[in-house]
Amino acid sequence: MNILVLNGPNLNLLGKREPEVYGSMTLENVISDLRRYAESVDVELTHFQSNAEHELIEKIQNVLIDSLPIHGIIINPAAFTHTSVAIRDALLALNLPIIEVHLSNVHARESFRQHSYISDIADGVIVGLGHLGYRFAVDALVSKYTTKNN
Amino acid sequence: MNILVLNGPNLNLLGKREPEVYGSMTLENVISDLRRYAESVDVELTHFQSNAEHELIEKIQNVLIDSLPIHGIIINPAAFTHTSVAIRDALLALNLPIIEVHLSNVHARESFRQHSYISDIADGVIVGLGHLGYRFAVDALVSKYTTKNN
Amino acid sequence: MNILVLNGPNLNLLGKREPEVYGSMTLENVISDLRRYAESVDVELTHFQSNAEHELIEKIQNVLIDSLPIHGIIINPAAFTHTSVAIRDALLALNLPIIEVHLSNVHARESFRQHSYISDIADGVIVGLGHLGYRFAVDALVSKYTTKNN
Amino acid sequence: MNILVLNGPNLNLLGKREPEVYGSMTLENVISDLRRYAESVDVELTHFQSNAEHELIEKIQNVLIDSLPIHGIIINPAAFTHTSVAIRDALLALNLPIIEVHLSNVHARESFRQHSYISDIADGVIVGLGHLGYRFAVDALVSKYTTKNN
Amino acid sequence: MNILVLNGPNLNLLGKREPEVYGSMTLENVISDLRRYAESVDVELTHFQSNAEHELIEKIQNVLIDSLPIHGIIINPAAFTHTSVAIRDALLALNLPIIEVHLSNVHARESFRQHSYISDIADGVIVGLGHLGYRFAVDALVSKYTTKNN
Amino acid sequence: MNILVLNGPNLNLLGKREPEVYGSMTLENVISDLRRYAESVDVELTHFQSNAEHELIEKIQNVLIDSLPIHGIIINPAAFTHTSVAIRDALLALNLPIIEVHLSNVHARESFRQHSYISDIADGVIVGLGHLGYRFAVDALVSKYTTKNN
Amino acid sequence: MNILVLNGPNLNLLGKREPEVYGSMTLENVISDLRRYAESVDVELTHFQSNAEHELIEKIQNVLIDSLPIHGIIINPAAFTHTSVAIRDALLALNLPIIEVHLSNVHARESFRQHSYISDIADGVIVGLGHLGYRFAVDALVSKYTTKNN
Amino acid sequence: MNILVLNGPNLNLLGKREPEVYGSMTLENVISDLRRYAESVDVELTHFQSNAEHELIEKIQNVLIDSLPIHGIIINPAAFTHTSVAIRDALLALNLPIIEVHLSNVHARESFRQHSYISDIADGVIVGLGHLGYRFAVDALVSKYTTKNN
Amino acid sequence: MNILVLNGPNLNLLGKREPEVYGSMTLENVISDLRRYAESVDVELTHFQSNAEHELIEKIQNVLIDSLPIHGIIINPAAFTHTSVAIRDALLALNLPIIEVHLSNVHARESFRQHSYISDIADGVIVGLGHLGYRFAVDALVSKYTTKNN
Amino acid sequence: MNILVLNGPNLNLLGKREPEVYGSMTLENVISDLRRYAESVDVELTHFQSNAEHELIEKIQNVLIDSLPIHGIIINPAAFTHTSVAIRDALLALNLPIIEVHLSNVHARESFRQHSYISDIADGVIVGLGHLGYRFAVDALVSKYTTKNN
Amino acid sequence: MNILVLNGPNLNLLGKREPEVYGSMTLENVISDLRRYAESVDVELTHFQSNAEHELIEKIQNVLIDSLPIHGIIINPAAFTHTSVAIRDALLALNLPIIEVHLSNVHARESFRQHSYISDIADGVIVGLGHLGYRFAVDALVSKYTTKNN
Amino acid sequence: MNILVLNGPNLNLLGKREPEVYGSMTLENVISDLRRYAESVDVELTHFQSNAEHELIEKIQNVLIDSLPIHGIIINPAAFTHTSVAIRDALLALNLPIIEVHLSNVHARESFRQHSYISDIADGVIVGLGHLGYRFAVDALVSKYTTKNN
Repeated sequence: MNILVLNGPNLNLLGKREPEVYGSMTLENVISDLRRYAESVDVELTHFQSNAEHELIEKIQNVLIDSLPIHGIIINPAAFTHTSVAIRDALLALNLPIIEVHLSNVHARESFRQHSYISDIADGVIVGLGHLGYRFAVDALVSKYTTKNN
Repeated sequence: MNILVLNGPNLNLLGKREPEVYGSMTLENVISDLRRYAESVDVELTHFQSNAEHELIEKIQNVLIDSLPIHGIIINPAAFTHTSVAIRDALLALNLPIIEVHLSNVHARESFRQHSYISDIADGVIVGLGHLGYRFAVDALVSKYTTKNN
Repeated sequence: MNILVLNGPNLNLLGKREPEVYGSMTLENVISDLRRYAESVDVELTHFQSNAEHELIEKIQNVLIDSLPIHGIIINPAAFTHTSVAIRDALLALNLPIIEVHLSNVHARESFRQHSYISDIADGVIVGLGHLGYRFAVDALVSKYTTKNN
Repeated sequence: MNILVLNGPNLNLLGKREPEVYGSMTLENVISDLRRYAESVDVELTHFQSNAEHELIEKIQNVLIDSLPIHGIIINPAAFTHTSVAIRDALLALNLPIIEVHLSNVHARESFRQHSYISDIADGVIVGLGHLGYRFAVDALVSKYTTKNN
Repeated sequence: MNILVLNGPNLNLLGKREPEVYGSMTLENVISDLRRYAESVDVELTHFQSNAEHELIEKIQNVLIDSLPIHGIIINPAAFTHTSVAIRDALLALNLPIIEVHLSNVHARESFRQHSYISDIADGVIVGLGHLGYRFAVDALVSKYTTKNN
Repeated sequence: MNILVLNGPNLNLLGKREPEVYGSMTLENVISDLRRYAESVDVELTHFQSNAEHELIEKIQNVLIDSLPIHGIIINPAAFTHTSVAIRDALLALNLPIIEVHLSNVHARESFRQHSYISDIADGVIVGLGHLGYRFAVDALVSKYTTKNN
Repeated sequence: MNILVLNGPNLNLLGKREPEVYGSMTLENVISDLRRYAESVDVELTHFQSNAEHELIEKIQNVLIDSLPIHGIIINPAAFTHTSVAIRDALLALNLPIIEVHLSNVHARESFRQHSYISDIADGVIVGLGHLGYRFAVDALVSKYTTKNN
Repeated sequence: MNILVLNGPNLNLLGKREPEVYGSMTLENVISDLRRYAESVDVELTHFQSNAEHELIEKIQNVLIDSLPIHGIIINPAAFTHTSVAIRDALLALNLPIIEVHLSNVHARESFRQHSYISDIADGVIVGLGHLGYRFAVDALVSKYTTKNN
Repeated sequence: MNILVLNGPNLNLLGKREPEVYGSMTLENVISDLRRYAESVDVELTHFQSNAEHELIEKIQNVLIDSLPIHGIIINPAAFTHTSVAIRDALLALNLPIIEVHLSNVHARESFRQHSYISDIADGVIVGLGHLGYRFAVDALVSKYTTKNN
Repeated sequence: MNILVLNGPNLNLLGKREPEVYGSMTLENVISDLRRYAESVDVELTHFQSNAEHELIEKIQNVLIDSLPIHGIIINPAAFTHTSVAIRDALLALNLPIIEVHLSNVHARESFRQHSYISDIADGVIVGLGHLGYRFAVDALVSKYTTKNN
Repeated sequence: MNILVLNGPNLNLLGKREPEVYGSMTLENVISDLRRYAESVDVELTHFQSNAEHELIEKIQNVLIDSLPIHGIIINPAAFTHTSVAIRDALLALNLPIIEVHLSNVHARESFRQHSYISDIADGVIVGLGHLGYRFAVDALVSKYTTKNN
Repeated sequence: MNILVLNGPNLNLLGKREPEVYGSMTLENVISDLRRYAESVDVELTHFQSNAEHELIEKIQNVLIDSLPIHGIIINPAAFTHTSVAIRDALLALNLPIIEVHLSNVHARESFRQHSYISDIADGVIVGLGHLGYRFAVDALVSKYTTKNN
C-alpha cells in the first residue's frame, strides 16, 4: 500500500520555531519516524513538503497524470487550509481517501483558522495531536484500504 | 492509567441505525473492543453513554467531587457538541486532557454541525474515522500521560 | 394504525397558563379528545409529554429498539424546537413520517422562534391552529399511510 | 359561511409538472374536491388562481371595496410568499382570519424559501401536506367562525 | 430547432435610453438581426418582451401547457433577475436548457445585482457582451441540441 | 410645468382601510385637493395609481417613449418601494427629478420597510407627513424647476 | 404656536463649504428666511445650532425643565443622526411632534448614513430638499397642531 | 414573603473549582448565609440546584401547579442562560418578579455568553458581584413586594 | 472609603419624565438618599451628573491627575453606554473597581441597547433594579474594599 | 489581432478528470480547436496554463513590461477566481478588454464559488458553456476590437 | 508652512497612564519635541488636545471660518476614531491633506477599534509607531506641500 | 543594523502602471534611494520583490534557517495582504519587529482591502504615504533597535 504525505507552508520549520509549541522534532525526524512506522504495517510513504501552492497541486495532479499507485493521501495543508481552493480542486480530481491533519488545535486559535477548504471533502480530520496525528492517519488509511480490499 | 470515555445522545443506537453509514458494530462491541485495546496498553477504561445532558455533566463532575483517579477524557458529545454550554463548563472545571471524537465527518453535514462548544477547550479533535477515532484518542492520551510523567 | 404523539416542555401546563392564549382545555382534555377522534378513524394513539429532552429522545428510540408498531409521529417539540439537535438526530434514526405541530403561531413571536431543528426533516408542519393542529396531523398521517398501503 | 381561496403563480400547472412531487391531480380537481368538501360543512368557496400579483391583490381588495360576505381567506401564495410585500399589505387591510398553505415542505428547500411575508400576519400555517392542507384550512376557518359566532 | 427568447422589463427601451451604455440599436433591431442569424443556423426564434412578470411566466408556462416544440430558452430577466422567484419556478417546471443573458456587466453595478434567482438553474450565463450575448446563447443551445440528438 | 404623480399598490384603498392611521380622505380626495393646489402654482398634474408593477413601469416609460412634457415625478411606491428593481430601472431611464413620498413613517414599522430601491436615485424623500407629503413634493419640484429655468 | 428648530454639528458652515452641494445661503440666511415664513403663518421660531451634543440635549431638556411653550421640534441632527443615543433619549423625554430634516439625500451617501437614531421616534422625515425641508417641516407641524386643536 | 432560589448546572461545584475565581465558599455556605440573611428580613427561601434542565423547569412549574406561595424568583441559570428556551417558557408561565444573577462577569467572557434567554423577561439582572448578587436580589424582591403591598 | 458616582445624559430628568417608568424621585432625592446610606457604612460619595461626554471623561481623569482618594466608581453611563469609547478609555486609565448601573432593564428595550462599551471592563453590572441598583453598587464596592484591605 | 488566453490551476487536467462533467477533450484539444477557429477570424492566440499564481501574474505583466501587441485577454482563473487579489491587480495594471470564462456553472456549486475577484473588472463573463465559452470570448474581443478600430 | 496637530480624548493622560504601553513622555514633551523638529524643517505647529468632540470640531472649523493659513492636518482622534461622524464631516469641509496617527497598534486590539471614520478620507495613516508617528506625519505633509508648490 | 525589505506582487510594475497614482519612480529608483538613506543612518538593506507567495515565504524563512543577522522587517505585501495566511505564519515564526507599508491608502479602496492578515502581528502600519512610507519604516526600526540596545 502507498500513501502520499503532503505538508504545506512553514512546516519545514518544524523543530526550529516555537519548540515549546511544536516540539523539538524536525520535519525530517517526524517523517523518518513515520516512514519507519509505515513500513512496520507494510505501507510505503511518499513525502513532499512545499511552501508553494502550485508544487503541492502538481504533486497531487501527478497521481492522476502519471497513474501513480497511491491509495490514500495525508495532508497537513497548514496555512493553505484556509485559503486554497486550488488544492481543494486538485484533491477533488482524484478519487482517493484523504485524511487532513493539523499539529496544533486550530479551533483554539484565530477565528479565520476555523474554516477549512479541505475538511468537507476529506474522509477524516485529526487536529491537535502533534505528529501522532500522522501516525493515526496512516492507520486510518490502512484500515480503509483493508476493509475495501477484503 | 485511567480514561473516562463519554458518549452522547443516540450513540446507544450504533449498529441499529443507518448501518451503511455507521457500520454494523453496536456501541457495546465498539467499547469492548476498545477496552481490550486499552488493556493491551495498560489503560483502564470507564465508559458511560447517556441521552441526558445532566447525566453526562454529573459523570464529569464526579471525577472532581469524588477525586476519581482519571487521567484523561475521551468524549463524543454527539448532538450536544453543538448545543451544550453546560457540558463545556463541567469539562472546564476539571484540569484534564480531553480528546473530542466524532464518528462521521461533521464538516460534510448540515452547517449547524460546523460549530462545537467543546473543540476549543479540547486538546485534540478526531473526526470521521469511525470507531478507530476512539482508539487513536486512547493512544493520544497515553502519549500525553507518558510524556508528562517521564 | 398506530401513531406516537409527543409533546415537549411546558405543554403539561396547557389550560393552566395564559388561558386567553392557549384556551382552557388541559393537555389531558386535548389528548383524550384526540384519542377519541383517532379511534373513530381506526388509529391507536400513544401519547407522551415530557419536560426532559432525554425522555423524549428515549421514547423515540424505543420505537426502533423495541420494534414498536408505530406508523407515524406527531411532535410538538415546544421550546426544544429551537434548541434540540438531539431530538432531531433521534427522529432521523427512525424512518417514519413526522408531522410537527405548534399550537400558537411561532412566526408572530420572538425571532429565535423562527428557526426549527425539526421542520426540514418533517413531512409537514402545522402552526397556529390550536389543538385542531393535532387532529389534522392524525388525518395527514392516516392519508399517507392509506396511500402507501393501497 | 364564505371562504376565499387564493392560489399564486404556477399553481395552475398542478398535475402537469413534476407529478412525482405534486401528485397527478390538477388544480381543477383539487378545487372541485375542496368545494365538495366545503359544501358538506356548509361553506361556500370562491376560488381564484393567478400568476399576476396585481390580480391577487385586487381579488383581496374586492372583499373590502365591494363588502363581499367573506369570513376567511386561504392563501397559497407560492413564489409570492417570499417576494410580495404588496399582497401582505392587501391582506393587512382586511380584518379576516387567514390560513397560509404550502403543498410541499418549504423548510426542506432553498434557503430563500424559509422567509414568508405572510406567516406572521396569518392565523395559521400548514406546510407540506399536499392538498389536504386546503381541507384542514377550511376546517380551521370553520372552527374559528363557529367559536366566534357562538 | 425552436428557441424561445424572453426579455424582461425595460428592455423595450433599448436604443432609447443611455445609448452610450446600451448602444443605439433598438430591441427590434437586435431581435431581427438575431432572427436572421438564427435562420442561418436553421433555428426558428420566438421572441417575447414584457414589463409584466405574469406575462413572462405565462409565456414560459405555455410551452408546457400547449406542448410547444421549444428546445431551449434564452432569457434576459433584467430587473426580475434579482426579485422573481415566480419566473424561477416557471422555468423549473419545464425541462429545457436555459441560457441567462445580461447586456451590461451586472458584477460591476449595485451590490443587489450580484444575486440572480435564475443563474443556479440555468445551464449557462453570459454577462456584459451586449447583444452578442444573445447570439452566443443561440450557438450554445444549438450545440447542446446537436450533441444530444447525435 | 407638468408633474407625473404615481401611487403604488393598495393606495387605492385610502380612506377605506385603517382610517385612524391613514385618515378618512380617499385617494380621489387627496388627488383632487393636490390638483387644485398644483393649479394654484401653475402646475398640471397627471395622476396614476396601480396595483400592478408593470402598469407603473409603463406609465414611466411612456414619458420617454412618447416624449411627454413631464418635468418631475412624485412617486409613492408603497409596497413596491422594498421589492421593485424594475421600477427603479424605469425611473433611471428618465432624466427627471424624482420625489419619493410615504404617507406613514416607514422607519417606525417592520425592518424590511427600512430599505428602499428608490431613495438613493431620488432627489428627495418625504416620510410620515400624510398627504401633505405630496403637496411638499409639488413645491420641491416647482422650486427645482424654477431654479433651473432661471 | 412655537417651534424649536435644532441644527447639529457643522451646519454653521452652511454656505461656506461645498456651495455647489449645499447652496450659497448661510445658516443665518436660511433661518431668517424661515423665521419670516413662520411669522407669516403665525409661528414663532426658536433656533439653536451647536456642534456640541450636550448643548443640543440641554436645549431639548429645557423645554421640559422650564415648561417652555413649545409645540413641535424640527431637528437636523447632521452627523449626530447616526451616533447619538443621548439626543434620542432627550427627545423621547418630551411628548412633542418631531420632524427630522436633512439637507442632502443621505440615502445616496456612505452606508453608515443609512441609519438614524431619530427617524423611528420622529413623526416625519424630510430628506434631500435643501432648506425647503425646514419650511415643509414648519407646515407639517402647523398642520398637526391645527388638527389637534380643532 | 417566600422566594424561590434556583441555581443551574455546575453551580454545585462552587468552592471546589477554580477557587481563585469563584471563591472558596461552597454552594451550601452561600445558601445558608443567604437563608440567614433572608430570615433577618422576614423572607423564607426555598433553594434548588440542578444540573438537569427538566428539574429546574419542573421546580418552576410546581409554583403554578401546586399554587405555592412564592412571591419572587432568583435564578442563576448558569450555562442554561445561553441555551434554554424551555426554562424561559416555564418562567413566562408564572406571573412573578424574576431577578437573574451571575457570579462572574459574563460580559468579559466568550462571546456566546453575551446572549441570555432570560434577561429580557427578568425584572433585573445582577452580574459579576459574586454571592453578594443573591443578597441584592433578595433585597430587590423584598422592595418590590413591599411597594406592591403598601 | 470614597466612591465616585457618575450619571450620564438625561439622568438629570429623573422624576420629571415618565414617572410611571422611572418613579417620582428626582436625581437629587436618589443621591441624597444614597449619600445617607453611604455614610451609614462609612463611605463618602462624590456625585457628578453630566449630559456632556467630555465632562464625564474629565471627572474620571481627575482621579488620576489629581491623585484623588477614590476607591471605586459607580457609573450609570445612560445613552453613552452604547456609544462612548472615550469614557471606556478614561475608565481603563484608572485602576479602580467599577460597577455599571442601569435603572431600567436595557435587555428588554431596543436592540442597540444590548451592547455596552463598559460592561466587559466593569467588575459588575446591575440592571433594572431602579435606584436600589446604586445602593447595591455601594455595598459591592465596600465589600471589595474590605476584602482587599483585610 | 492578438489575444492572450490564460487558464488557471487544474485546467491542465481537462479530459482527465470527471469526463462526464467536463467532457473528454483535453486542454490541448480545446486550445488547438480554438486556435484554428481564431485563425479563421484572423486572430493569433497566445495560450498559457499554469497552476502557479505567480506565473499567471507574470504572463500578464509581460504584456506591459515587454509592450507585447496583445489586444485582449481571455481568462479562466479557475480556483484563483475566488482567492487571487494579485491576479486582479495585475489585470488592473493593463488597459485591455478582459473576458472571464468558466467551463462549468459556478452559480450551481459551493457558495464560496459565487464570488469572483475578476468579474467586476472584466468586460464580460461567460459561465457554464464548456469550451464554447472560449470561442464566444474570442468573438466578443474581435467585435470590441473591430468596433474600436472603425 | 503651518500644520495643525489635533489630539483626541485621553491623550492628555500620556505618560501618566500605562507607561509600559505608552512610554513615560507626557503629551507636553511629545509636542515640544515635535515642535522643535518641525521648526528644523521650517514648519510651524499649532497643537490642540481636547476630550470634547465639539472643541475638536470647532478647531477644525476655525481653519475655514477664519481662513487660517494651515497647510495640513495631523490628527490622532483616539476614541473618536471609531465614533465621530461629526469630526469626519468637519474634516471633509476643509480641503487639506490629513494624516491620521495612532500611537498603539489598533489592529491588535478590540474588534471595534478596527473601524475608523477618518481613514478613508485621510491621505495617509500611521499606526503603532509611538510619537515617531507624529514626526513622520510632519515629514509626509512637508513632502506633499513641497511637491505641490514646486 | 540590517533590515529586510519585502515587496509583494505587482510592485515590480511601479512607475510603469498608473503613474498618476503611484508616481513615475520605478521600484529600482525607490529602493536605491531607500538604500542610500539607510546607509546614511548606518543600516544595511536587503531587498526582495516577488510575485510568488512561496518566494516571499522562503525569504522570510531564510532569516531563521540561515540565522541571518536581520534586525527588522519592512513588508509591503500588496495583494497578499488580504489573502496570505502563509506569509503571516512565516512572519510569526521569526521574532523580529515588523513594519507593514502600503503605498496607496487601502482604506479608500475596495472593501476587501480593509482586512490585513499582517497588521495585527506587525509593530506598526504605514498607509498611503507613497515611498516615504519605506523611509519612515526604516526610521521606526532604527528607533526600536536603538531603544532596545541602549
